Amino acid sequence: MEIFIPDLKEIKPEDDSKKGLIFDLIIIGAGPAGITAVVYAARKRLSFMVISKTIGGQVILTSVVENYTGYQEITGNELTNKFNEHLKQFKFYFEQTEVKQIKRENSSFFVETDAEIFNGRTLIIATGAKPRMLNIKGELEFKNRGVTYCATCNAPLFANKDVVVVGGGNSALDAVLQLISIANKIYLVVRSDVLKGDDIMIDKIKANPKVEIMFNANIIEILGDKLVKYVKINQKGVRKELGVQGVFVKIGYNPNTEFLNAFVKLNTAREIEIDSNNRTNVAGVYAAGDCTNVPYKQIIIAAGEGSKSAISAFDHLSKS
Amino acid sequence: MEIFIPDLKEIKPEDDSKKGLIFDLIIIGAGPAGITAVVYAARKRLSFMVISKTIGGQVILTSVVENYTGYQEITGNELTNKFNEHLKQFKFYFEQTEVKQIKRENSSFFVETDAEIFNGRTLIIATGAKPRMLNIKGELEFKNRGVTYCATCNAPLFANKDVVVVGGGNSALDAVLQLISIANKIYLVVRSDVLKGDDIMIDKIKANPKVEIMFNANIIEILGDKLVKYVKINQKGVRKELGVQGVFVKIGYNPNTEFLNAFVKLNTAREIEIDSNNRTNVAGVYAAGDCTNVPYKQIIIAAGEGSKSAISAFDHLSKS
Repeated sequence: MEIFIPDLKEIKPEDDSKKGLIFDLIIIGAGPAGITAVVYAARKRLSFMVISKTIGGQVILTSVVENYTGYQEITGNELTNKFNEHLKQFKFYFEQTEVKQIKRENSSFFVETDAEIFNGRTLIIATGAKPRMLNIKGELEFKNRGVTYCATCNAPLFANKDVVVVGGGNSALDAVLQLISIANKIYLVVRSDVLKGDDIMIDKIKANPKVEIMFNANIIEILGDKLVKYVKINQKGVRKELGVQGVFVKIGYNPNTEFLNAFVKLNTAREIEIDSNNRTNVAGVYAAGDCTNVPYKQIIIAAGEGSKSAISAFDHLSKS
Repeated sequence: MEIFIPDLKEIKPEDDSKKGLIFDLIIIGAGPAGITAVVYAARKRLSFMVISKTIGGQVILTSVVENYTGYQEITGNELTNKFNEHLKQFKFYFEQTEVKQIKRENSSFFVETDAEIFNGRTLIIATGAKPRMLNIKGELEFKNRGVTYCATCNAPLFANKDVVVVGGGNSALDAVLQLISIANKIYLVVRSDVLKGDDIMIDKIKANPKVEIMFNANIIEILGDKLVKYVKINQKGVRKELGVQGVFVKIGYNPNTEFLNAFVKLNTAREIEIDSNNRTNVAGVYAAGDCTNVPYKQIIIAAGEGSKSAISAFDHLSKS
């Protein structure tokens, strides 16, 4: 996976001494939500910093984006580049790392990373989500040895191979569509009896003879030697074996909220609960995008949420 | 004002008989919210139509957009064109008109226009907002004879003239910045004692010798003969006259919700009240963008809201 990060020399202000600084705002995460928060925070002339391991979030895991209004068709890589170019317009502190934990003292927040502790008056949490695992036998053993969670990254490795895609939603369909032009045979293993993605994608997949859809089926084990050789499937109580070299796991996402512990209120899906102004239950702490309970997880939605969170943080700072 | 509309031949399905049709979805309005709803509705293969007088909404009234993530800097015209090109990817019914009223019968909705009545199972209202008027003497009389609400459209008419801009927020600042390179002298009349826009814009305006900011001031009358000649100002109880040829009124926006009457619940600002899934108080009716109580009015936010509203409508249809 290619990681896009702005040239730190370009984005760091000349005064590089962060110690003792209290930022107006610390933005955690730099996917579509965090990046849009940067755009708004910079235009509001807030003193802010960004902590993120990557730039672009899940966009870089997407093959083609056709529903980001204004770009009819753009690859995930290209859109990430556009976002990155937009970011590079502004000077700000960027720390390429993960957050370990957050503590509150009076009305300011201490954000701990492996390297340093940063201090901010407000926070925006925009850490996104990551692919959900099957939690079956062989999954960890064969991870990156045939088992993958990113079709964009790894589909090209399976030229003329047989693969299985697990899942029934848009991300599974996206993986199948990417594999159609590459792989020899694609089994789509769907737990329920229906595909839940966009009909435009479903139609394409159903029309392609390379794809065999298996409804009411669960993958129960992944086997091989050095690399994946086959998977065991349970379809309506009947056991089957499929000889495949690749397993694409596309069964949804978990929000990246583990580091928060009980710092802000989460729902049962471990998503951060926000109100219509992107406020969490902690005053001064905002959240945006796929790590929240926003009802749908889409790039354009996350971007809009990032904008709201930054304006809300600005409003809070203006009044405090 | 230039109006962008897709070529109707391109976007209308071959079967053009709308009478008796019940659409899955009728989208009212085609600004950033309505257009994004189209993108999502089309990808979900809904049968839908769009009713709107214009394409692009307030985007076409904006000079330069620098906060639509992914486009570092783009004119309102260019961004409208990008939106328009995106729209043209899809085939759908487009009626270039206004909605007169909406009625509900059982579980479907009848949308009345001057021309026809359209029937839909769900609705998305994305009608945006329009500039607020001063409601002072001379305003109507001199409208389009010096008084204007759109800097992008009319600033070029005031080359080397003296003008007054009324307002203290981003849209007033945007108007001033557009006029700086065109007009001779710009008075900025601000009711309160502070400018409320982005600091990056405020700094530019304060640094420019062409601009004179008048705080705690109200414009009370617009006078002239055929065209505007001067305005009367009340600044802290002191009456002043300013010789100007142009009056740019930039004091905010009113939501375009008059036609709704009591059809859905509005707040005291006459904005449509929505929940986090963009549901109004009427089942099957969704709303998105500047016509709603979404806390901030921004292009990227409206686009995200449009996406949510379309997915919500799709979910509703799937379950009904």
